Amino acid sequence: MSYCIASYRIHDDKADFHKKAQSIAVGMTVGSWTELPAAKQESMKKHLGEVISVEVHEPAGGERYADVRIAYPDANFSSDIPALLVTVFGKISMDGRIKLTHLEFSESFLSHFKGPKFGIHGVRQLLGVTERPLLMSIFKSVIGHDLDELTRQFSAQALGGVDLIKDDEILFENELTPIEKRVAACRKAAEAAQAETGKKVLYAANLTGHTFQLKEQAKKAIDAGASALLLNVLSYGYDVLSELSADPDISIPIMAHPALAGAYYPSPYYGISASVLLGQLMRLAGADLVLFPSPYGSVTMPREENMAIREQLITGSLPYKQSFPVPSAGIHPGLVPLILKDFGTDVIINAGGGIHGHPGGASAGGRAFQQAIDAALSGVSLADYAVQGHQELAQAIEIWGGER
Amino acid sequence: MSYCIASYRIHDDKADFHKKAQSIAVGMTVGSWTELPAAKQESMKKHLGEVISVEVHEPAGGERYADVRIAYPDANFSSDIPALLVTVFGKISMDGRIKLTHLEFSESFLSHFKGPKFGIHGVRQLLGVTERPLLMSIFKSVIGHDLDELTRQFSAQALGGVDLIKDDEILFENELTPIEKRVAACRKAAEAAQAETGKKVLYAANLTGHTFQLKEQAKKAIDAGASALLLNVLSYGYDVLSELSADPDISIPIMAHPALAGAYYPSPYYGISASVLLGQLMRLAGADLVLFPSPYGSVTMPREENMAIREQLITGSLPYKQSFPVPSAGIHPGLVPLILKDFGTDVIINAGGGIHGHPGGASAGGRAFQQAIDAALSGVSLADYAVQGHQELAQAIEIWGGER
Repeated sequence: MSYCIASYRIHDDKADFHKKAQSIAVGMTVGSWTELPAAKQESMKKHLGEVISVEVHEPAGGERYADVRIAYPDANFSSDIPALLVTVFGKISMDGRIKLTHLEFSESFLSHFKGPKFGIHGVRQLLGVTERPLLMSIFKSVIGHDLDELTRQFSAQALGGVDLIKDDEILFENELTPIEKRVAACRKAAEAAQAETGKKVLYAANLTGHTFQLKEQAKKAIDAGASALLLNVLSYGYDVLSELSADPDISIPIMAHPALAGAYYPSPYYGISASVLLGQLMRLAGADLVLFPSPYGSVTMPREENMAIREQLITGSLPYKQSFPVPSAGIHPGLVPLILKDFGTDVIINAGGGIHGHPGGASAGGRAFQQAIDAALSGVSLADYAVQGHQELAQAIEIWGGER
Repeated sequence: MSYCIASYRIHDDKADFHKKAQSIAVGMTVGSWTELPAAKQESMKKHLGEVISVEVHEPAGGERYADVRIAYPDANFSSDIPALLVTVFGKISMDGRIKLTHLEFSESFLSHFKGPKFGIHGVRQLLGVTERPLLMSIFKSVIGHDLDELTRQFSAQALGGVDLIKDDEILFENELTPIEKRVAACRKAAEAAQAETGKKVLYAANLTGHTFQLKEQAKKAIDAGASALLLNVLSYGYDVLSELSADPDISIPIMAHPALAGAYYPSPYYGISASVLLGQLMRLAGADLVLFPSPYGSVTMPREENMAIREQLITGSLPYKQSFPVPSAGIHPGLVPLILKDFGTDVIINAGGGIHGHPGGASAGGRAFQQAIDAALSGVSLADYAVQGHQELAQAIEIWGGER
């Protein structure tokens, strides 16, 4: 038989955790078991959930909790993420202090998904950058700006040598810069910048609006020359990402934004772990790049949670291409060596304020990051590299601080 | 100018809450303000968020927190729920201990939504029941059952005189009972029961599968004679409910299931309040009936949160039809007077175990509830009513207990 396994952390001062686990395994599958006649049990056995493990923890001076794993037969749910989530966490999310901490997918379930269309390798191929970490920048401000202003911002970023530029996640369809117009304008600006720098740049346009029109919007963007899409996955549901990603006509990378994720992951008692939310499910659903709050800046996530997300985005235990991890928020050039230490080179260095806030402007901001990356990759300290004629890096260090 | 206002509760031991509020109002709208040139400020003013109020609470011996209200100009986001949520809680959901507690919508925003197509009044009209609370029952177990078994369960429930019968939320598309077949079979059973009892019964079939196929699935169900639909709204996103509900071809009531809601509402520090999640947004998106965990059973929500949900589902301050509140889980006949005291008569009494667990079977279970409703409406105590020849009610009280 084929199962998907869900892990939970359950806090309770006095519950019999084994009994609780058993009641989930039965209640969320066949409903009742012991009262079924033997013949019925025989035919229902293939639908019965199974308690895989119950580890009770009673730390001295701490709160009592258990880590519980329950297997749900694939036969019970259709092979889509809404069905999986409702099965493993629908009703029980409301039943006490319980958090969904991990998922293990069956081969059969996984076989219905394609994962990222491009992944780390594919995005690198599009850019022609095989080894070094990629550099991304975000528009500084977008609301209320017209196409000219947006294009100026785009050019300044692109001329600084970044590999990717992304829309702000709060830029929705609007009259000043509808997606097909801003894609066309930014594409032109990207090509002009490339003529100057020799570097290609991908632009991720925010895909927004009503759910049932998203495919059409995506295709409109692609027709206008879009090179990537940004999606606020949690506001639409994972299945939307999954279907967009699986659509052969949507032939550009999709970047998943974590907007609203904080409604789920930060509580130790409730919700869904960041590694499930922004790691496992994003990759399963086909995100080529996944943003999440870095442990370095002001909007932070603990480092171990970042590492758990990264693990799920790149692990060989999922039969898909790897998703590019994009630790975000509060990133400045001084952090580059630390980011590479934590993430390796398969990472996207993503900055907003750390680019635009550079005293030399956004282009200088991009160059400062490039210099920091070059230094880190060649094993030179940022301070040493800065004084070797890398003025933009020196200025960045002066403002935001050096290597941590 | 036209704004939507979001309320937050922010816990922090030492933050300057006024400064924090200001940084959200600017950061989540125009991005930066003080450094803008005066001319630019003039043109950007219509996009700038505004702090409406900051109430700091420093309870003796308790944790320090603030209730903050921020107005977001409608001009900044498109008129759909994903855009609203990403605007008011996208990035900041990840920034510390912050919970979204309330929304106030502008008239302009509301004008883009239609709310419930049927609402309380419309559902009552479909059933021909104008005043009393409605009675709903849930299939006991559904997974692994074939059409015959499902139909038998349906008939037993319908013959007990319930007004509505709903699928379990974990019944997905499957080979044994695909939606069009079970709708057709249950419709036949409903008509047969009606011929016997004289009572109409609505059947809410669970709408599942891939997002972009949901409309087609819904229409397939309607062609097969569906009289209502159940939707796991949070696994698909509110916009899917909104678009299904606004579709003129989907001309039957939609019932919203709260599956996964517990990932958002229970923490005092994080997430989204139950009254926003299962009250405001469900009605805005057009749910005719909304299920939520009752305060009475085992899977519980505090009574005041139930009342806050109810308020949002029926308040006259939203220009839509009212959504039917359906407090669920752990409901037995003894609770009926309490439910009516809390909710009034515009409520759906919804039971699973309290119907199927009746010693006389599901039909007797339905009759016990009907008797409890009759007693409560005529001001007779359940105990008195039970001894007046209402045996099913007497049996129910014996098992589950009497009036609370």
